[in-house]
Amino acid sequence: MKVCKFGGTSLASAQQLKKVAAIVQADTSRKIIVVSAPGKRFDQDIKVTDLLIELSTAALTGQDIQKPLRQVMERYEQIARELNLGNEVVTLIENDFLQRLLADPSHPVLFADQLKAGGEDNSAKLLAAFLDSLGMSADYINPLEAGLVLNDFPDRVRVMPHSYERLSSLRKKETISIFPGFFGFTESGRLRTFERGGSDITGSILAAAVKADLYENFTDVDCVFAANPKIVENPIEIQQMTYREMRELAYAGFSVFHDEALMPAFKESIPVCIKNTNNPEAAGTMIVAERQHSKRPVTGISADSGFSTLYVSKYLMNREIGFGRKLLQILEDEEISYEHIPSGIDNLSVILRNHQLSPGKEARILHRVKHELEADDVHIRGDFSMVVLVGEGMHNTVGLAARATDAIARTGANIEMINQGSSEVSLVFGVLKHDEEKILKELYKEFFSPVYSY
Amino acid sequence: MKVCKFGGTSLASAQQLKKVAAIVQADTSRKIIVVSAPGKRFDQDIKVTDLLIELSTAALTGQDIQKPLRQVMERYEQIARELNLGNEVVTLIENDFLQRLLADPSHPVLFADQLKAGGEDNSAKLLAAFLDSLGMSADYINPLEAGLVLNDFPDRVRVMPHSYERLSSLRKKETISIFPGFFGFTESGRLRTFERGGSDITGSILAAAVKADLYENFTDVDCVFAANPKIVENPIEIQQMTYREMRELAYAGFSVFHDEALMPAFKESIPVCIKNTNNPEAAGTMIVAERQHSKRPVTGISADSGFSTLYVSKYLMNREIGFGRKLLQILEDEEISYEHIPSGIDNLSVILRNHQLSPGKEARILHRVKHELEADDVHIRGDFSMVVLVGEGMHNTVGLAARATDAIARTGANIEMINQGSSEVSLVFGVLKHDEEKILKELYKEFFSPVYSY
Repeated sequence: MKVCKFGGTSLASAQQLKKVAAIVQADTSRKIIVVSAPGKRFDQDIKVTDLLIELSTAALTGQDIQKPLRQVMERYEQIARELNLGNEVVTLIENDFLQRLLADPSHPVLFADQLKAGGEDNSAKLLAAFLDSLGMSADYINPLEAGLVLNDFPDRVRVMPHSYERLSSLRKKETISIFPGFFGFTESGRLRTFERGGSDITGSILAAAVKADLYENFTDVDCVFAANPKIVENPIEIQQMTYREMRELAYAGFSVFHDEALMPAFKESIPVCIKNTNNPEAAGTMIVAERQHSKRPVTGISADSGFSTLYVSKYLMNREIGFGRKLLQILEDEEISYEHIPSGIDNLSVILRNHQLSPGKEARILHRVKHELEADDVHIRGDFSMVVLVGEGMHNTVGLAARATDAIARTGANIEMINQGSSEVSLVFGVLKHDEEKILKELYKEFFSPVYSY
Repeated sequence: MKVCKFGGTSLASAQQLKKVAAIVQADTSRKIIVVSAPGKRFDQDIKVTDLLIELSTAALTGQDIQKPLRQVMERYEQIARELNLGNEVVTLIENDFLQRLLADPSHPVLFADQLKAGGEDNSAKLLAAFLDSLGMSADYINPLEAGLVLNDFPDRVRVMPHSYERLSSLRKKETISIFPGFFGFTESGRLRTFERGGSDITGSILAAAVKADLYENFTDVDCVFAANPKIVENPIEIQQMTYREMRELAYAGFSVFHDEALMPAFKESIPVCIKNTNNPEAAGTMIVAERQHSKRPVTGISADSGFSTLYVSKYLMNREIGFGRKLLQILEDEEISYEHIPSGIDNLSVILRNHQLSPGKEARILHRVKHELEADDVHIRGDFSMVVLVGEGMHNTVGLAARATDAIARTGANIEMINQGSSEVSLVFGVLKHDEEKILKELYKEFFSPVYSY
């Protein structure tokens, strides 16, 4: 059986729901359908989730809630009308939102969670009603009853391990299950939501729970491209890649998936396929545990800006057992996670994302490194970009680093950092932000244009 | 004024002491002379320090001490005889060793220290007597009286900060001070020695204490070469390099200096010159705090084997604040210092020296990483070599990494690890041991042969 997840654009309008229905109907193994809230119909449109955030803010601050509630309901009403679903489901949805507005407002975060989750929940009810109207046997599934159990507030939300056992019974259902993404419930029945984009996680959890043959993730692109199509003209499509490649690409700019979304599927080695609701015939991109190496050593190239480096030097640093650990402890005290730690003999740099820093944190870090670690020099530089070459075949390709560094040299850019050697599937370059685009283009040319590659 | 340190080969024979005397006489600013124990006169010869270790072992284990003591005394006697110094100094030296043999044997390490230190101490007395006999006004300096104070047993030996103040009075002496290297005394008057090669440290401490204009380190090579002359034919001489370059080169195979030796000189920015006792006219290699960049971006290339990598992978590792710190804590618990930590997205490697590992440590580390850090995969690989390109001019040379990786690709070898980006003066490659030599040769050709370079 297959678990299919449809993203916001796939549920944005009646026309889109018809495409979803056709996709579900075309393959009887598509038995579990996870849905997002209705997304944008056009570029300037507002997602239902954003309308719901507005509604919850209005309710919490004592402002008028009629207008934002109307905006939300209009989206559902319009879809129901155009699909000829009648008033029953619309009333059901409206009552649901009114019920949510009565929730306890003393925890603003939990109150907002209640409203936001309504986007997905009612999207699921609407799709179930539509499939039913088409004569397909489909049930809306309540995550509380189905057993999608989350840990308790206020810890960072995560799924509890026993959820998988409970959710596995969905496998036995004869009918098609329509499951709202994005939220679950604590043991005590309190609703909590994942981070934004969390419907991908719900789909991944369900795929793992029912041990699906495939987790199909429907979005609005045909596939994952080997490089950002906004920068590289007509990049090639990636037909297949491994989880590791996906993760390494996602690190710097490939935002197809929410960061943690693939974890449950990864743990059960369930293949994932990224497909296009608007063009379901396209093969899409398969993400698998292992794949045969292609002739091309590089699978994709990603690039992202917004990195800083914390540079620390101290004479005889590398004789000092515990130096690195103490430095990382200082970062941990500031709740900072880091990306890389390139090191010389008496110095090291910590590469981290700019959003991890603030003037206060920077000042405290610099002070502590200088005084507690007695560093000779410590400073922070911003304006870095990371460019990452990813490919399972890279590790044993002699001369690959030479081709990459040659290509970068051709652009006239300086390489600030190189990190290779752990993952075996990636080669990371730190460059100055203003060099990022030209480097990405030249690397793409080197590894993917027909003249240069294999 | 200048502080001069002479190594073991410079004091191995009467002929060598004559060279030392000529060097001291040639420049009146050479006022403080630090000496090692007599070293090897020929390839199969035994250093006096090794004879003294034998002597101390014999004394501690109740074996015959006459023969090893004879061997030691013969070395000093022969030098004294050939320099026509008469019996007085020989008797002084013999009494000194006999006195040392009466030391308290209950601490075998301290007992051995007493005997080993006699090598340098009596070398200093002999040189002072010889310079005196030449009409040069020279005094043997007792480190206890001069105030070279060390921390207490059993902590790792290091100089106490107030030593510098006490030793600074040597600057005022009219006569030439002959100072034995390698040892000092605790506040309570207990003798302790530095690690082997520690006379370099004594010289560096004295240079810092008297704020010398130059610290001349006399050895048996004309200079430091840009690459190991045992592997590269006729490598060029390095005329000048910075402390940083020296440190980075020393890291992988350039063993001109004891690791910590330059620290005191470095802190006072005292220039260091490596010179040849057997060819004092050669300019030698200057080690300075800062230098003008030469046209050549690379100053030297070193290579060393004996490295291992500890590889750890865990899905979503880089979202987990504290992961790296916990890993380093496990290594710290095993008293292991590491060299580099190249990292991918969900994995990292720790590069460390093989001698830091043992089967027991490896097993404990693997077990803890697997279970405490819940790693998906962890393993250790040996047989790595590190090849390091060093040069102050490297950082801003566009295309340098490309030239280096091209050169390595020409050898057909695979690059296992690249680390660049912190030090700005080095580029480190991890390669398999069996590829080390050919890579070193090719990199030398690329950056130093007249055809290729600048």
